[in-house]
Amino acid sequence: MRVYATPDNIIGKELRDKTVVVVDVLRTGSTILTALCHGCKEVIPAADTEEVIRMSKNYEKDSFLLCGERNIQAIEGFHLSNSPLEYTRERVAGKTLLMTTTNGTKAICRTNDAREVLICGLVNVDAVTEYLSGQDSDIVFLCAGTAGQFSLEDIVAAGAVLNRLHANLGMQDPEMGDLAVLAASLYDHDKRDLNSLLKGCTQYRRLAEAGLDRDITYCLTQNAAPVVGVYRDGVVRIPGPVQTQKDESRE
Amino acid sequence: MRVYATPDNIIGKELRDKTVVVVDVLRTGSTILTALCHGCKEVIPAADTEEVIRMSKNYEKDSFLLCGERNIQAIEGFHLSNSPLEYTRERVAGKTLLMTTTNGTKAICRTNDAREVLICGLVNVDAVTEYLSGQDSDIVFLCAGTAGQFSLEDIVAAGAVLNRLHANLGMQDPEMGDLAVLAASLYDHDKRDLNSLLKGCTQYRRLAEAGLDRDITYCLTQNAAPVVGVYRDGVVRIPGPVQTQKDESRE
Repeated sequence: MRVYATPDNIIGKELRDKTVVVVDVLRTGSTILTALCHGCKEVIPAADTEEVIRMSKNYEKDSFLLCGERNIQAIEGFHLSNSPLEYTRERVAGKTLLMTTTNGTKAICRTNDAREVLICGLVNVDAVTEYLSGQDSDIVFLCAGTAGQFSLEDIVAAGAVLNRLHANLGMQDPEMGDLAVLAASLYDHDKRDLNSLLKGCTQYRRLAEAGLDRDITYCLTQNAAPVVGVYRDGVVRIPGPVQTQKDESRE
Repeated sequence: MRVYATPDNIIGKELRDKTVVVVDVLRTGSTILTALCHGCKEVIPAADTEEVIRMSKNYEKDSFLLCGERNIQAIEGFHLSNSPLEYTRERVAGKTLLMTTTNGTKAICRTNDAREVLICGLVNVDAVTEYLSGQDSDIVFLCAGTAGQFSLEDIVAAGAVLNRLHANLGMQDPEMGDLAVLAASLYDHDKRDLNSLLKGCTQYRRLAEAGLDRDITYCLTQNAAPVVGVYRDGVVRIPGPVQTQKDESRE
């Protein structure tokens, strides 16, 4: 198992036989998972605003929402920003969400050749762990990062999953890369007070300065949105017809 | 202060006004510092074996040593491998060391536009900290890594210096990048037993498999080679005429 700190670090890497876990805690991953948890039909990540607007022309009125941010701020004319707290059941149930964000959706869109792609935040660590346990394909964690830089909150969330895979399920990997060793160790040390570790981080500070403390608190809450989100053919959905189905009924 | 995990991460970064601390624990940084500590005249890092042999033609017989490794192994016809334990005072005192290693010397050679370049391992953390304290230029830690990948032992050594700069000397940087936050935190957690943290790491395991446990133990010993090594004009030396001189007498 390997952890890559930013999307740039997978340039030239072969993902075809791998399960890629895209980790994005603040905030895109957490927002997508919250939307899925609250019954949206699907989330379609897009690289930019223009692509979102172009895609929206294929949907019936009221069947979709325009979602996302640029540099933390809401996009003019869009229905929802990138605050997971806006993605209530009342707003999103049954809808297709067309979404673009500064870092997160770009990371998701760069995994197109992977065998399978999961969306991961701290809000769904147990669900991701359960889904991965017993997988026999190589697992790669791809952290979304912030503006091409290492983001500590994503490393910690990767560590949260790795830690569970090791400790609870006995999945060990003698060829684990150093960043994976670090992520697991770091999470293990700080799991009782992630806030203290993460409050010095770039994206945490930027969101706090923008007055988004409630978003931060939510996104750092483990298992607040306990679903699996699978990205396939350009769309993120909860796999299978029923969220609580068992592994063997997955395709 | 920023920490870059591999030389590739500084591509396109402006280093001209910065003090770059090249961190390489296993083993090149530790070996260079040990050689300086034991009285070698200077160390000249080179990108490859051919460059070392070409340079050696400019030196008097017995004034230089050919040093280094390829994929951990000694290079045929060279005087010394990359084991710091071979760099005794008897062997290196007064000599010019022409050195090439798989990862470390390449990282050093890529800092040519920096204002000042220091060599750092765990073997000289206090010396590096003292040298950096009170510096008013930006400080950047460049970890050598292993084969282009993140190396945990280098991150930990960067954390050892950052930790001392923060805790002992009150040097704080509100704009510190996330990898610097992580490095400092990680070192702080594990400083009493670095071996337990690092024994899962790629380079540690490769050296242990090659039977080089004594090298590992030495390279993880803090302040085993308490000198500053400055890379300038292609050469690593202890700055100034006397190793124990005070800061104010540095140029």
